[in-house]
Amino acid sequence: MGLRCKDIVSIRDLGKEEIQLVLELAKDYVDVAKGHKNSDNLKGTILSALFIEPSTRTRLSFESAINRLGGKYLDISGPEGSSLVKGESLADTIRMAACYSDIIVLRHPQEGAARMASLFSEKPVINAGDGAGQHPTQTLLDLFTIQEACGSIEGKEIVLMGDLKYGRTVHSLSFALALFGAKVSFLAPPELQMPEEVVDHLGDIGVKPRVFTKIDDIIPEADILYVTRIQKERFPDENEYLRVAESYQITLETLTNAKKDMKILHPLPRNLEIHPDVDSTDHALYFKQAFNGVPVRMALLKLLSEVEK
Amino acid sequence: MGLRCKDIVSIRDLGKEEIQLVLELAKDYVDVAKGHKNSDNLKGTILSALFIEPSTRTRLSFESAINRLGGKYLDISGPEGSSLVKGESLADTIRMAACYSDIIVLRHPQEGAARMASLFSEKPVINAGDGAGQHPTQTLLDLFTIQEACGSIEGKEIVLMGDLKYGRTVHSLSFALALFGAKVSFLAPPELQMPEEVVDHLGDIGVKPRVFTKIDDIIPEADILYVTRIQKERFPDENEYLRVAESYQITLETLTNAKKDMKILHPLPRNLEIHPDVDSTDHALYFKQAFNGVPVRMALLKLLSEVEK
Amino acid sequence: MGLRCKDIVSIRDLGKEEIQLVLELAKDYVDVAKGHKNSDNLKGTILSALFIEPSTRTRLSFESAINRLGGKYLDISGPEGSSLVKGESLADTIRMAACYSDIIVLRHPQEGAARMASLFSEKPVINAGDGAGQHPTQTLLDLFTIQEACGSIEGKEIVLMGDLKYGRTVHSLSFALALFGAKVSFLAPPELQMPEEVVDHLGDIGVKPRVFTKIDDIIPEADILYVTRIQKERFPDENEYLRVAESYQITLETLTNAKKDMKILHPLPRNLEIHPDVDSTDHALYFKQAFNGVPVRMALLKLLSEVEK
Repeated sequence: MGLRCKDIVSIRDLGKEEIQLVLELAKDYVDVAKGHKNSDNLKGTILSALFIEPSTRTRLSFESAINRLGGKYLDISGPEGSSLVKGESLADTIRMAACYSDIIVLRHPQEGAARMASLFSEKPVINAGDGAGQHPTQTLLDLFTIQEACGSIEGKEIVLMGDLKYGRTVHSLSFALALFGAKVSFLAPPELQMPEEVVDHLGDIGVKPRVFTKIDDIIPEADILYVTRIQKERFPDENEYLRVAESYQITLETLTNAKKDMKILHPLPRNLEIHPDVDSTDHALYFKQAFNGVPVRMALLKLLSEVEK
Repeated sequence: MGLRCKDIVSIRDLGKEEIQLVLELAKDYVDVAKGHKNSDNLKGTILSALFIEPSTRTRLSFESAINRLGGKYLDISGPEGSSLVKGESLADTIRMAACYSDIIVLRHPQEGAARMASLFSEKPVINAGDGAGQHPTQTLLDLFTIQEACGSIEGKEIVLMGDLKYGRTVHSLSFALALFGAKVSFLAPPELQMPEEVVDHLGDIGVKPRVFTKIDDIIPEADILYVTRIQKERFPDENEYLRVAESYQITLETLTNAKKDMKILHPLPRNLEIHPDVDSTDHALYFKQAFNGVPVRMALLKLLSEVEK
Repeated sequence: MGLRCKDIVSIRDLGKEEIQLVLELAKDYVDVAKGHKNSDNLKGTILSALFIEPSTRTRLSFESAINRLGGKYLDISGPEGSSLVKGESLADTIRMAACYSDIIVLRHPQEGAARMASLFSEKPVINAGDGAGQHPTQTLLDLFTIQEACGSIEGKEIVLMGDLKYGRTVHSLSFALALFGAKVSFLAPPELQMPEEVVDHLGDIGVKPRVFTKIDDIIPEADILYVTRIQKERFPDENEYLRVAESYQITLETLTNAKKDMKILHPLPRNLEIHPDVDSTDHALYFKQAFNGVPVRMALLKLLSEVEK
């Protein structure tokens, strides 16, 4: 079985079996991603990248992934930054990227941009974030990290915490977790709770997450605590931000009642959400999670390169 | 036979037979450029790029070309942009590029810069545009595209249209087309017609292009319609620009009387010159033309790497 | 014997024998650095680069070095420039670089940054300049260049000239030269003489450099004249700068009394310190010195990749 889809715009473009296929292959690629083993699996393949919006981890892990497989990375947005490329229509820019490469990865500030881009490209398009929309490879690497940490996802208590309202990654992730049979809880201040429509979507597939506002009420049950960034600009005044940021910070004290093998994830970069003291505990899995972006993206690139569009 | 020249500053550095040599090899490289076949023809070769002026298509197609041949691309202008490099003399910067690479590609805002650079470099220099001067690899890919489309260039009716006064690419192209025996016509508003000196050059080799101002007067005869960008900044006021831009826009209607197999070229990016509706017609060859930049530049890089300077 | 150290933060991290090991291997790599021979010695290895401060020669010669050895270069600071990366702590950024690569090279405006970075990285860290601090690979390539030019370093008269006060490279270099038994002299205007602490350090190992303020007093004895940039911003007013810059400029006239085989080095880029007329004399070794950055950095990367951290 290969991937049926040609473009990865939303995690819903992939069925459960296809996601498992990616996660399986990612496992095989861990040693290559670490540089302990060489691979020429994508020798001669060029991945072009169009990051109209800034990105560090996503961009670099894609670049590392294609390099680790013996392929090449072509930065379309380029040294002049994205301003130049903005001068022409997205359709023409995507057609250009398709001329010069085999797979295209796109980050764009507007929701729907990746879907539109896929219509104009003869080559597979991977959405690396489109505004408030989707970011499917982040979801894949989160699933991979949870599976590696817990053995399986099914039945595990996964607590999504922080800014659930605007945090792009947690919308797709909650859906995917439900698909894999996890027990999902939402932990956020009332003003940053999960949007109604996401909750409704989960209801449609028979999943009804519990909702919490206090860390202590749920942390003892958690197998995975998925922390997201709380951004200052979401709050009308800075004091309000600081109050929320402080009461949602993970410290050594917060973790007193956590299970011994509870793991903390965070898409990074972080602000104040996780105190640096936590870094050296066994709970901290966020750096390994960042690394996991490499084998997961390697697997996706390999599987996409086998698809005829 | 190889290339006798070591630097490609102007299309006139190449004789007709040398141009044919590049076009022949480019044909062989099309499958590699598409990623359907692997090549290590330039394994170990580093192409350094110095784009003091912005460029997207030229820069990316050079990078794709060297990558497709198994070589590496070194961006001299770099993440800090070109401002940094400007701090030292062009001579010293070129010497530095020659230290770190095997072939140098240079775009520079000043006419004559590439010729000067070639004097200070032990490695071959390719001019990728020097202000109002030359851009020989654009001419090569245009010739390649016309030859592929028409079977041969000789005797074909090629209409150069748009801004013929400031449009760098059409000056070199008209000369090269004449060299290959094409029938060349100029279609432009009076204020943007081909400069006297280009017309005189063509006269010197016995070629006398016809001149038109209305699309309908020549389009039925055209085998190739080569459209160029009309830039707002050339006009004293915006209304004047819009009037010209509108009357020189190619639409489905404009094409009613064109030959069935007439092909449209454009160096891209485009503004309003070609309506997006035209993209899906058989006339539209400009996206393939952009792709052709890759095999043509691959061929040139390969042939230059065989030259001892 | 290999390298015992895992991080190259200061030239003092390397013993004399280890420096010799690097210089020996660099010699073997010269043909590969020139592109005359291919190497896959670091195939599959990724070097990540974090240049928080601008750099051209250092950055490009590292990129060329890893490419010449068949490895890949990952630009962490990236197209968005370093501003983005600044948003998170240096510790988290370094951890990220360690996730995506095998060796990390760092330039940072603050002294001590590279040492700190090495504490947070599982992968070897190379200091490519930390403010007024160290820049050990520059010292290595300077030593290599002197050894190649003079046969050996021991007993040679090396004159360090220009801005010895703020010039980062000459502090480490004078120490390393003393280690290799060179006779070192300082030639600078009184306001830009070598800092007391550097002189004291040299005294500790039994070396007492002679101090000069006039070029003519020492140039006839010099085997190597190492010229550094005199920067306008070090002077309270521009006239003062111009007076000093003029009296410390190397011209054809200055060189009249120099030994025939005296060689001039300069870390480049240069301002007015060396007149372009000197470039074509046999004294000019600064362009070859710039090239030598490639084989020396190749050697260091190869040796570091053999170290388990």
